[in-house]
Amino acid sequence: MIIIPVIHVNMWKGISEDAVEKIIEGITHVFVDMGIPSQAVEVIVHEIPKSHWGIDGKPATKSRPNSIPP
Amino acid sequence: MIIIPVIHVNMWKGISEDAVEKIIEGITHVFVDMGIPSQAVEVIVHEIPKSHWGIDGKPATKSRPNSIPP
Amino acid sequence: MIIIPVIHVNMWKGISEDAVEKIIEGITHVFVDMGIPSQAVEVIVHEIPKSHWGIDGKPATKSRPNSIPP
Amino acid sequence: MIIIPVIHVNMWKGISEDAVEKIIEGITHVFVDMGIPSQAVEVIVHEIPKSHWGIDGKPATKSRPNSIPP
Amino acid sequence: MIIIPVIHVNMWKGISEDAVEKIIEGITHVFVDMGIPSQAVEVIVHEIPKSHWGIDGKPATKSRPNSIPP
Amino acid sequence: MIIIPVIHVNMWKGISEDAVEKIIEGITHVFVDMGIPSQAVEVIVHEIPKSHWGIDGKPATKSRPNSIPP
Repeated sequence: MIIIPVIHVNMWKGISEDAVEKIIEGITHVFVDMGIPSQAVEVIVHEIPKSHWGIDGKPATKSRPNSIPP
Repeated sequence: MIIIPVIHVNMWKGISEDAVEKIIEGITHVFVDMGIPSQAVEVIVHEIPKSHWGIDGKPATKSRPNSIPP
Repeated sequence: MIIIPVIHVNMWKGISEDAVEKIIEGITHVFVDMGIPSQAVEVIVHEIPKSHWGIDGKPATKSRPNSIPP
Repeated sequence: MIIIPVIHVNMWKGISEDAVEKIIEGITHVFVDMGIPSQAVEVIVHEIPKSHWGIDGKPATKSRPNSIPP
Repeated sequence: MIIIPVIHVNMWKGISEDAVEKIIEGITHVFVDMGIPSQAVEVIVHEIPKSHWGIDGKPATKSRPNSIPP
Repeated sequence: MIIIPVIHVNMWKGISEDAVEKIIEGITHVFVDMGIPSQAVEVIVHEIPKSHWGIDGKPATKSRPNSIPP
C-alpha cells in the first residue's frame, strides 16, 4: 500500500530545530504505525511569528505574552 | 457552544503590524458576532513576498509593481 | 491599490448557508475597511466534519459532542 | 505554556473513522510530549478523493490504482 | 535531485474529471520541465462549492451566478 | 466565464527568483488553456526551509542532504 499523506503543521516562530525534528519524527511514526512507509509521509512545518498568530482577537504577542514555543 | 474556527490569511509581505492587528481583531469579531467566544478563534496570517505571489501569470512585483500592502 | 488577500476559513460541517454568507461578508468588510476593493478579496470556506476535527486528542464528535455549528 | 499548534492532514478519501481517530490521537500526543496541553492542539483532517490527488502526473486512481486508504 | 513540491489547488465544485486530470498533468509538467521527477510532484485538488467561495463580499453563487467550472 | 482558482505551491527555501517566475507562468498557463483568464489565477509560493520539511521521518536536511532547490 502506498498512500501519501501530506501534513502541514503551523507553529509559533522560534521553535527549536530539535523540536521541529521531534514533530517530524513523531507525526511520521503515527502513519508508519498504520502501515504507510515513512518515505511516503511529508510533514511541512510553517513557522508563524507570534505577532501574526491571532487568538482571543489579538496577536499572541499581546494575548499570550508569556508563552514561548518549545 | 464551543466551535473552533481556524482562519488562514494570505497577504503580501510588508504589511504593517497595525494592519495585522486590525485583521485579527476584525475577523475574530465576525465569529464573535455569531456567538463563538473570541478565545476559540484562531487567525493565522501568512506573509508572502510579492515576488512569490503570482497574478496574471507573473509575480506581483511585475504585474502589480505599484501596489503596496496596507 | 490592488492587493489581493486570500482567506481560508476552516469550520465544522453543518454550518448554515446564512452563516457562510455572514462570514464571507464580514471578513471581506475587514479588508474593504483597509482600502482594498471587495472584488479583490477571496474567502474560501472549508467545511470539515466534526469526526475529522481533532481537539483534545479526540474527534470533536467525542470531545465536543454537544457543540453544533452556527 | 499555552502554545496552540494547528495541524492540517491531507489523506485519501475512504479512510476509516478508526484511522482518523488514531491520526488525531497520535499527532496530539506528539505535542503533549513536548509539554503542550492536549486541548490546545487542533488536528484537521481533509479527505481528498483519489481522483483529485495527483502523483506522477496522473490522478492516483490511475497511477496508484491498487492502493487503498487505511 | 529529488525535491518534492506539494501543490494545493482550490477550484469550484463541479469541475469535470477530465479538467482535474488536465490540471494534474499540466502542473506536474511545469516541475518536470525544471528537472524534478514526476513521481515527486504531488497535486491536491480541493473542490469548494460556489456557495462557500466568497468574492466581492458575497458567495460566488450570488456574485458570479453565471460562471461554471470547466 | 470567470472562475478563480487559487493555487498554493510549497517548495524548499532557496529556490531562485527565476524558478519562482517559471512556476507562476507555467501553472497560470494550465488554467488559461482551459479558458480561464490569466488575471483570475492566483499562485502563491510558500518557501519552506529544508530543516522544516520532513520526509522519511527526518528533516530533508538529513534525509535529502544533497538535494537543492532549482
